[in-house]
Amino acid sequence: MFSMRHIGYVRSPYQDSKEIPKGFGTKHDAEGVLDLEPEFEPGLMDIEGFSHLFVIWAFHESDGFELFGTPPIDDRPHGVFATRSPRRPNPIGLTVVELLSREGARLRVRGVDMLDGTPILDIKPYLSSVPSERLRRGWLDEAEARIKS
Amino acid sequence: MFSMRHIGYVRSPYQDSKEIPKGFGTKHDAEGVLDLEPEFEPGLMDIEGFSHLFVIWAFHESDGFELFGTPPIDDRPHGVFATRSPRRPNPIGLTVVELLSREGARLRVRGVDMLDGTPILDIKPYLSSVPSERLRRGWLDEAEARIKS
Repeated sequence: MFSMRHIGYVRSPYQDSKEIPKGFGTKHDAEGVLDLEPEFEPGLMDIEGFSHLFVIWAFHESDGFELFGTPPIDDRPHGVFATRSPRRPNPIGLTVVELLSREGARLRVRGVDMLDGTPILDIKPYLSSVPSERLRRGWLDEAEARIKS
Repeated sequence: MFSMRHIGYVRSPYQDSKEIPKGFGTKHDAEGVLDLEPEFEPGLMDIEGFSHLFVIWAFHESDGFELFGTPPIDDRPHGVFATRSPRRPNPIGLTVVELLSREGARLRVRGVDMLDGTPILDIKPYLSSVPSERLRRGWLDEAEARIKS
């Protein structure tokens, strides 16, 4: 077992998960703040140089897990590891955000899809990407094709 | 506090962290296996459709953390959240791998940069990427420029 603690909280416009845009073509343009505990501020040195960050966070309102289920954007079940379901064996969320500015231990970012008050576990620089021509999106592409047809 | 448990282990060619390629232009082409506990196999349904996966894992050999330090690929210190240092407040690692094949609860992948025996915490589909023209790589680009000059 590994014990994880929050290093700060997400400030986002979403008070309820129903408010978070889901589905195909969803653009996560919402701005928010990664509000770190003051003790961790030294760990942000030089973070301003990165345009994008990985935010690793906890699904703090999720209880238990299901190994497969039907996502809101499809009518067929998929394995939990092939989805972003909050009901995971370890309730870990992952979001790529754009870093807009920093004020001390507060990072203003674009692209939040977490609830307001979500505990942050880690922040890492987003360094590289997989070329789009080499990326396959599995059941998501298939579900999208069914909806469009 | 959040308690996380392993859902499986990474099988990799690296027995010692010194063996893991680091530095600029490092290509992580090593093949390995994400060896999930049999109870989690149903959670992999439809994962074969994705070309790339996020693997979230634990730095199980890391002890304690430092808020800033000098990475092996630079001669200047940076904040821990601007690096991939293993000595983080929460010892969480993140790697993007290419999925080569699946046999039951075992995923053969390319791109491992973890030690053999690393505990896996979560697997998620890698869905999108930030266009390279919008990506800034902070101190990494600067350190690279200094080394090249």
